[in-house]
Amino acid sequence: MKIAVLGGDGFCGWPAALHLSDLGHDVVIVDNLSRRSIDEELGATSLTPIRSIEERVTAWQEVSGHRLGFAELDVAQDYDGLVALLLRERPDAVVHFAEQRAAPYSMKSPAHKRYTVDNNTNATHNVLCALVETELDAHLVHLGTMGVYGYGTAGMKIPEGYLDVEVTPEGGADGDRVSVQMLYPTNPGSIYHMTKCLDQQLFAYYAKNDALRITDLHQGIIWGTHTDQTERDERLINRFDYDGDYGTVLNRFLMQAAVGYPLTVHGTGGQTRAFIHIRDMVRCVQIALEHPPARGDRVKIFNQMTQTHRVRDLAELVARISGATVEMVPNPRHEAAENELHVTNDTFLDLGLRPTLLEEGLLVEVEEVARRYAHRADLEKIPCTSVWTKEQQPGVPASRTTRAAPAEQSA
Amino acid sequence: MKIAVLGGDGFCGWPAALHLSDLGHDVVIVDNLSRRSIDEELGATSLTPIRSIEERVTAWQEVSGHRLGFAELDVAQDYDGLVALLLRERPDAVVHFAEQRAAPYSMKSPAHKRYTVDNNTNATHNVLCALVETELDAHLVHLGTMGVYGYGTAGMKIPEGYLDVEVTPEGGADGDRVSVQMLYPTNPGSIYHMTKCLDQQLFAYYAKNDALRITDLHQGIIWGTHTDQTERDERLINRFDYDGDYGTVLNRFLMQAAVGYPLTVHGTGGQTRAFIHIRDMVRCVQIALEHPPARGDRVKIFNQMTQTHRVRDLAELVARISGATVEMVPNPRHEAAENELHVTNDTFLDLGLRPTLLEEGLLVEVEEVARRYAHRADLEKIPCTSVWTKEQQPGVPASRTTRAAPAEQSA
Ligand SMILES: NC(=O)c1ccc[n+]([C@@H]2O[C@H](COP(=O)([O-])OP(=O)(O)OC[C@H]3O[C@@H](n4cnc5c(N)ncnc54)[C@H](O)[C@@H]3O)[C@@H](O)[C@H]2O)c1
Ligand SMILES: NC(=O)c1ccc[n+]([C@@H]2O[C@H](COP(=O)([O-])OP(=O)(O)OC[C@H]3O[C@@H](n4cnc5c(N)ncnc54)[C@H](O)[C@@H]3O)[C@@H](O)[C@H]2O)c1
Repeated sequence: MKIAVLGGDGFCGWPAALHLSDLGHDVVIVDNLSRRSIDEELGATSLTPIRSIEERVTAWQEVSGHRLGFAELDVAQDYDGLVALLLRERPDAVVHFAEQRAAPYSMKSPAHKRYTVDNNTNATHNVLCALVETELDAHLVHLGTMGVYGYGTAGMKIPEGYLDVEVTPEGGADGDRVSVQMLYPTNPGSIYHMTKCLDQQLFAYYAKNDALRITDLHQGIIWGTHTDQTERDERLINRFDYDGDYGTVLNRFLMQAAVGYPLTVHGTGGQTRAFIHIRDMVRCVQIALEHPPARGDRVKIFNQMTQTHRVRDLAELVARISGATVEMVPNPRHEAAENELHVTNDTFLDLGLRPTLLEEGLLVEVEEVARRYAHRADLEKIPCTSVWTKEQQPGVPASRTTRAAPAEQSA
Repeated sequence: MKIAVLGGDGFCGWPAALHLSDLGHDVVIVDNLSRRSIDEELGATSLTPIRSIEERVTAWQEVSGHRLGFAELDVAQDYDGLVALLLRERPDAVVHFAEQRAAPYSMKSPAHKRYTVDNNTNATHNVLCALVETELDAHLVHLGTMGVYGYGTAGMKIPEGYLDVEVTPEGGADGDRVSVQMLYPTNPGSIYHMTKCLDQQLFAYYAKNDALRITDLHQGIIWGTHTDQTERDERLINRFDYDGDYGTVLNRFLMQAAVGYPLTVHGTGGQTRAFIHIRDMVRCVQIALEHPPARGDRVKIFNQMTQTHRVRDLAELVARISGATVEMVPNPRHEAAENELHVTNDTFLDLGLRPTLLEEGLLVEVEEVARRYAHRADLEKIPCTSVWTKEQQPGVPASRTTRAAPAEQSA
């Protein structure tokens, strides 16, 4: 298959591109390298020494013999460039990772909120619009997040995208129930997560009106760094973010453990989150590509996660492995202190996914990533300094009322 | 009250601004005049001779003694200008009409789709972001549309925004039902309508995270041209769109009747739509402003419509009044041929709205608007030339399959 990987220079996109290339697919990476510019903006770089995209592509060709295409292109801003690229490459599938993906970054300031909404909405809409215009009938696989949902609190098991509801038609008797299927309702916990709710609406519309074939992967928080492909040469190494904006909770713990700092848990640590190892992520993307919806089908939605954990249990697990201590700090997020989370993930398990469990893979991460590259870390970058509301800004009296947000589960 | 009316030079915004000013409120209009540029792009102008915004403002001061502020500003593009304006004017309320609002226009081409998504999403998000940044605690009243919904087909009565659903928690017995309240699910019929679904998500998020006070008015199709205020002087006259893009179904019929053309009904005319007279619209906006939600409340959603009609019944009504004939033409939209539509509109009726009924007001429109200004019409602009899918383009064979969209009810 010819596959375009949008955002293929990023943390998920790069190992996914290598995995697909390794399987023999013809892969072209499309990325505007904005994530690298954000590294510069934040003064924080990947813990692991990632190479330029040019060096990565060359190294992969040397190591594997497979050619990777690369186009530097802003999917949100350069629509004409995107259309030209699609017409030139004529991909059978497009995997779309090209969005701003950090919740704390999306909450930093009005400019960051606006950038996240503008970039993510226009990136997704441009891809959809271009697929219609070019009439390629390519299968679009998008990376969404489990964090679009917030009804974990009601104790309900989150289905794969849709909910069946029974309604009584106007004027009907109570027995006259009609079954209606709807998108499972969202309740996003940050501007970033909200953009994924907007994406969902865009997908539903284009699948209905234009019969685009779309799969939306509602992904849990990724952990782990290496895949079989990125391990083959240090020039292929994947990024590892540990800063307060991009570092997801587990990576921050690993980093803290590696340098002998206490693990900082936000609030009570009672938030439950969904996780998946990076090796499983690349397998899931492969499986999704091998099972496209038919033209005219509704959007396929899969929950792409393998385990759920409470944040404080995670901290204890890392502490046990590494000997670190645990410290509670105020939560910068506006969310419920404790939440339950039950998720359906039958599709990928049925299609053959064999999950890497946290208990097995964690030690490798501490030893081979966090400790190995600890000398490169800027420890001041570990704390999260973004806050969710005006009231949480340093020096704001706690008098104004805002409603507590229901649970939110993600990066 | 100090009220900022975004999009206050438009078809709804102008009469709403005058009505609020007439009530004694201090009104400032904010508009980038994009609707007038679109008139030029389409080579179609308002049937009625609308004046420049400067002349309108001057005329209103002469006629009423009330000053109207005006700021030319792009709400979607000029965020800093918007923040400066809010800080200067410090409005108690913001009424937000500033979006691209024509479904056929939004479907004309990839560029029109992209403009509509970009303009509407960023306009709404900028307003929300600026209200948080400026900490004004102004009440935001937004004009949404009934066209976000598509479950009319299930025969269900559309509630005012929310749906109660009973769910069984994970591991619970069948008796353990938990009641969850969610946004009533959407099923938009065009890119334009879809942007209003995106707006809904933005509102829900900002009400929850930042406790903004927001009312979203899900409006039916407006009919009628004059209000008590716009009638006071011809320089205050409101716009009347009759072209295939912006002219809503009733206006196109009126225009056709006025010039002795057959009334062109799309498809079987079995589509049911919700309507409201322009005088009732300005009253509803007033009522909404007088009943703001409290800080921390969820978004208030009202259905702002007074009657539903099948398109073919409307055509027959206009034909009966005017003596015109009715002609069926192919439907450019991708939608079900026939749909039912039942809508709850208790809130406004309970708050004192006395609807103007179609049967009463139509004749005035034919006589005093369509016939009176018929000499200004460019009759070639009446047909709708936008189509909803590639398959509907002239010369495309009808072989490729697209799924029939469920019912869609709007302009
Ligand atoms: N990392 C996680 O734990 C996680 C969890 C759930 C979902 N996801 C989703 O997976 C996707 C990839 O996440 P990631 O962790 O690899 O993030 P990342 O920031 O490392 O990678 C995103 C890539 O997209 C590129 N990009 C962004 N905007 C672009 C644009 N307009 N045009 C072209 N390229 C653009 C960036 O330069 C970057 O290389 C995201 O959509 C994210 O929401 C990630
Ligand atoms: N007319 C109807 O039948 C109807 C029905 C349902 C809902 N609505 C909603 O009511 C609102 C107003 O509709 P209308 O019929 O008055 O449309 P309109 O096009 O006549 O008015 C919209 C006004 O907003 C301005 N505008 C657009 N984008 C802007 C931006 N980025 N910055 C500043 N100004 C901007 C335009 O110049 C125009 O004056 C829309 O949001 C529409 O969706 C209208």
